[in-house]
Amino acid sequence: LTPPARGTVRHVQRVEFGDCDPARIVWFPNFFRWIDAASRHFFVACGVPPWHELEQSRGIIGTPLVDTQARFHATATYGDELLLDVHIAEWRPKTFVQRYRIWRADADGPADGTTLVTCDEVRIFGGRSATGKLFAHPVPEDLRRLCGGAEG
Amino acid sequence: LTPPARGTVRHVQRVEFGDCDPARIVWFPNFFRWIDAASRHFFVACGVPPWHELEQSRGIIGTPLVDTQARFHATATYGDELLLDVHIAEWRPKTFVQRYRIWRADADGPADGTTLVTCDEVRIFGGRSATGKLFAHPVPEDLRRLCGGAEG
Amino acid sequence: LTPPARGTVRHVQRVEFGDCDPARIVWFPNFFRWIDAASRHFFVACGVPPWHELEQSRGIIGTPLVDTQARFHATATYGDELLLDVHIAEWRPKTFVQRYRIWRADADGPADGTTLVTCDEVRIFGGRSATGKLFAHPVPEDLRRLCGGAEG
Amino acid sequence: LTPPARGTVRHVQRVEFGDCDPARIVWFPNFFRWIDAASRHFFVACGVPPWHELEQSRGIIGTPLVDTQARFHATATYGDELLLDVHIAEWRPKTFVQRYRIWRADADGPADGTTLVTCDEVRIFGGRSATGKLFAHPVPEDLRRLCGGAEG
Repeated sequence: LTPPARGTVRHVQRVEFGDCDPARIVWFPNFFRWIDAASRHFFVACGVPPWHELEQSRGIIGTPLVDTQARFHATATYGDELLLDVHIAEWRPKTFVQRYRIWRADADGPADGTTLVTCDEVRIFGGRSATGKLFAHPVPEDLRRLCGGAEG
Repeated sequence: LTPPARGTVRHVQRVEFGDCDPARIVWFPNFFRWIDAASRHFFVACGVPPWHELEQSRGIIGTPLVDTQARFHATATYGDELLLDVHIAEWRPKTFVQRYRIWRADADGPADGTTLVTCDEVRIFGGRSATGKLFAHPVPEDLRRLCGGAEG
Repeated sequence: LTPPARGTVRHVQRVEFGDCDPARIVWFPNFFRWIDAASRHFFVACGVPPWHELEQSRGIIGTPLVDTQARFHATATYGDELLLDVHIAEWRPKTFVQRYRIWRADADGPADGTTLVTCDEVRIFGGRSATGKLFAHPVPEDLRRLCGGAEG
Repeated sequence: LTPPARGTVRHVQRVEFGDCDPARIVWFPNFFRWIDAASRHFFVACGVPPWHELEQSRGIIGTPLVDTQARFHATATYGDELLLDVHIAEWRPKTFVQRYRIWRADADGPADGTTLVTCDEVRIFGGRSATGKLFAHPVPEDLRRLCGGAEG
């Protein structure tokens, strides 16, 4: 198995029977469940404190999704073990792009595995105003460094 | 269609393609998703204020599940429209039994429809202690009356 | 409520407690569950036979997703009733673009409601080869007409 | 960590943010998703061939659920790692009881961990009749032995 690139965090996900639809392939909304889990694990793996701590200390409630674009290249089914490689592709003043490659190592497939899904998300470091509305914090410099981001 | 009995609230649920598994029948955890929705709708239909209001006014955060017993009689698939008939079968000092019949009206089936799932749940009116632990409030007399409960 | 435009099918979806995450807003993968249901309902509403019939008669197993792009404009929570307006924005030789606007009619909001999510999907009329691989059928002329598509 | 007893298979499950509800605890239908996964993993771990093979060779399509009884003892939240210990508690001529203990090893808890959920399921080795109806195969002697079952 190719190790993940520097700055990339790998998340492993088994596919279960109940994740599959009557066509016996993963029902696509489940890929987004796993992508969201991989997003959070990325921050945990980088040493970012859990959201409920950051909410107390800085008013950051998490990294809500603003925009997502996903492409489905190949299907998966139960028994498969998926690898989600995650990194931050771009830092912007108030948003960032989190990039995913979901793939599977097949015994008889190409050496770098079969790509199933690629996805680019735009997320924010979310805060909540007094009236309960979500807003975007400026990307905190220290969190960006923890996540392997170069100077902007 | 037989109307629901007095004290019974009926909840309608379409079955979607993604609710079904590779055997092309509803994957059973989805029945519990719908049962939980029907539980909440029962209280809304009886005029019980929403949980976030009751949390403010009385410290009741909802009706957490303590125990459930379900029997699966027949299967369903996408395109089916399910009826969930819900009532409170028993009131106890600190718990209550919420009872469900999930059924489907089939054109060529029995007049009272095909029973798919029957379920008895024990729930509490939940509070949260200072340390965050769940506890059971005594069943509030006024809420019991709203839900059609006779004197204990 | 504004009625849906010609060629647009409206799908109604209640938000349940269990659809919401610890931030008390809809957990985003659930929007994709509802989008997929709205996609299938669109074809049913247009008079397209169910997939298991089309599989028998023409080898069309459904409309698998190739690519999706979604933008999240505002949040929703349980108790909300969402409207999903769906139409086909573009027909191509072997794919089509299915477009969604998910919105909510707020008593005190703008007359045309609050847009929550917009989404453009590329889908195919999927077939399965002898080896089990998915492939794209040319878009069938008669199905395109049923769905309100002008000549290509 | 106590190792699982003989005849017991242990399944590990992370709790994700999206598995939790607005009360910030696992939404209970998700426990059933994990129980179903643990059920299948039990058979895989015991050396039972996958269902799609058994369907071909013997007409066994899986182990559909007939009845379930679950008790919820304590709550869990995201970041928790759950252990699902599974064994067959009883073999009957045409059904069997699959028993689950879901628990968490807490640093400062009791030595044998905190029990969150206990569950007893009645399942069958399911077949499908010519008309598509599910039926129960007599429990196959060889599969029972693989799963650690004593003579009946």
